[in-house]
Amino acid sequence: MSTDHTHDHSSCGGGGDHHRHGDAHGHSHGHSHAHGAEGRADLSGPAESPITVEVTRGSLVESLHRARACIVDAGGHVLASWGDIDAPVYPRSAIKSLQAIPLVESGALDAFGLGDEELALACASHNGEARHTELVRAWAERVGLTADDYECGAQIPYDAATAADLVRRGEAPTVFHNNCSGKHSGFLTTAKHRRERLKGYVRYEHPVQQRILGVMEQMTGQDLFGAPWGVDGCSIPTVGIPLGAIAYAMARIADPVDLPDARAQAVTRIAAAWGRHPFLIGGSGTFDTALMEAAGGAVLVKAGAEGVGCAVIPEQGIGIALKIEDGAARAREVALAALIRSTGALSEAQWARVPELLAAPLLNRAGARVGEVRPAAGWPG
Amino acid sequence: MSTDHTHDHSSCGGGGDHHRHGDAHGHSHGHSHAHGAEGRADLSGPAESPITVEVTRGSLVESLHRARACIVDAGGHVLASWGDIDAPVYPRSAIKSLQAIPLVESGALDAFGLGDEELALACASHNGEARHTELVRAWAERVGLTADDYECGAQIPYDAATAADLVRRGEAPTVFHNNCSGKHSGFLTTAKHRRERLKGYVRYEHPVQQRILGVMEQMTGQDLFGAPWGVDGCSIPTVGIPLGAIAYAMARIADPVDLPDARAQAVTRIAAAWGRHPFLIGGSGTFDTALMEAAGGAVLVKAGAEGVGCAVIPEQGIGIALKIEDGAARAREVALAALIRSTGALSEAQWARVPELLAAPLLNRAGARVGEVRPAAGWPG
Repeated sequence: MSTDHTHDHSSCGGGGDHHRHGDAHGHSHGHSHAHGAEGRADLSGPAESPITVEVTRGSLVESLHRARACIVDAGGHVLASWGDIDAPVYPRSAIKSLQAIPLVESGALDAFGLGDEELALACASHNGEARHTELVRAWAERVGLTADDYECGAQIPYDAATAADLVRRGEAPTVFHNNCSGKHSGFLTTAKHRRERLKGYVRYEHPVQQRILGVMEQMTGQDLFGAPWGVDGCSIPTVGIPLGAIAYAMARIADPVDLPDARAQAVTRIAAAWGRHPFLIGGSGTFDTALMEAAGGAVLVKAGAEGVGCAVIPEQGIGIALKIEDGAARAREVALAALIRSTGALSEAQWARVPELLAAPLLNRAGARVGEVRPAAGWPG
Repeated sequence: MSTDHTHDHSSCGGGGDHHRHGDAHGHSHGHSHAHGAEGRADLSGPAESPITVEVTRGSLVESLHRARACIVDAGGHVLASWGDIDAPVYPRSAIKSLQAIPLVESGALDAFGLGDEELALACASHNGEARHTELVRAWAERVGLTADDYECGAQIPYDAATAADLVRRGEAPTVFHNNCSGKHSGFLTTAKHRRERLKGYVRYEHPVQQRILGVMEQMTGQDLFGAPWGVDGCSIPTVGIPLGAIAYAMARIADPVDLPDARAQAVTRIAAAWGRHPFLIGGSGTFDTALMEAAGGAVLVKAGAEGVGCAVIPEQGIGIALKIEDGAARAREVALAALIRSTGALSEAQWARVPELLAAPLLNRAGARVGEVRPAAGWPG
């Protein structure tokens, strides 16, 4: 696999947004869609994904994952790219930081006396551990929300020990255990603050989702009218966006210099909360938490379902976006680590403390190391 | 993705084995390896995997899986193939039927008064449901084995309800819950019958594994001396074998006409047990069980880890082998269904009763259908 740097310093969506954003709080377009019309279809051939992650066992590469990725700055310049970064990708949970913008910009966060921890949870795909659910429950109570208001569905906590505890106590998982419960708390808090009806806040045409669509358009520099979309695991819309534009939005969090003041302040607060609370973003044993703890705030990362990953490197003013063709989380993790390593944002001494993030050991049921998941030859860094 | 039938009727390992098999019960080669020497490395580029499975969400193909596959007859003729079928693949649990041959051939099965159910469990990757574990425990008791003899490691049952029951009762999972406990019972039963030491039966150089290596060589028509190998999830060796040769071995189960008498009888018994007990092979909600129940004995299927799948179609005397490049189970399932459908072994009325095997719905946490996993255009059938 050879790398492809041919996009160096080409432009990526940025430099000037092509539609107006007079109302920084809302979606200023009039193109709400009827529910059920899921945008234009894009069923063309697979986007080129030229860099690979290999899964070894003994003396063989047993399986292989293909990736496309890019590193972009806040001017929209593509500093490095691999494969097709123009094809649309559902960013899934990797861009919860963008979905949290209205919570800050609307004034809802401050109006309810919420802070950094809640903001971090709005950006999180958490494990459903006690620390996560207790904070989300307290947040709901403070805002006057009940479990019935949440439309994300209940979820068995990702954290196996927490899940087993629930079973042992004979308790069913709740909406608060849903890894997205912080994000949904943010949606509901914003809707409540703006006196919008809460019911149906997950639907494409609801003001909560339309507002986020506007934020996404502005931050990615894309016209998302008619863009392909689908329903996410937690029932909200997820909209197809070119991978390069996702990285661009992350770069603008890293360096919000070109954003309107209110938005620049919002993303600065979000980035600070994201970086200060690695545990709230994921939890025990998660890649995101481990990497951010190792980085000591120098890198913000966020996983998304189906092999999407994003990173923000504030000091360098750059954003990274990654899509594993087949959607595998195990590949997303080592691939994102490799990309971050290539930026030099962590010292080699920092990486040496978390070698399992760069090459993840594969253990069998007896606990023996039988292989590993690692970037194939040809990766940067 | 276009299909590739260029291998039509070319030869695949079969037609005449290139080494002697005077001792049908044992591995007649003298090339036991020292532990730790894991065969020759094969780290060449990825094998071509031209057919794809697509994962849709809303109006976009969100993720994509690549596959290679072939359909072979008992004469070693490749009836159809897609991609590289010469590159080695770890067959993992997809060839437990081959690993069960010594259990029958050695006379161990009959000597201990075991039957069809035990033989099916030897071929199984079971869910660890009560029916599975009770049978395996009874088998162990009959042979005089205890949990301490098993070297597969304990495993949380695949079946979620059974796993929750264990937690509720405060019980730890045991080796009997390991999906491979039937296979390991077969290994131990054969070793006991042949008065071999039990300890270390999972190791490459132990007579149990050497005997199986010999059976694999004969059934696949391959010289596996120095072949790449690794340690499987249950601690036994898994050896790299060309995909075409794996399909060939499956075809010889379907049509054992060219096998020595003892082996032909053994595989005929194995195939019968495999087909008669779909539930024991997998369990509630598994693809293998559902497909075999739908087929009513006309097709035998077996999943392996890392996206390997095998099928045997006795009436047509053919075998099928499949490898998903990235190892995803969700892709292996619909891909194997598509290949089986192309053979006509099931009627369209039979398929109509299990549409979810051909295109698996993708549900979100609220239970809504948000996409599906399905073969892309270009598949056979």
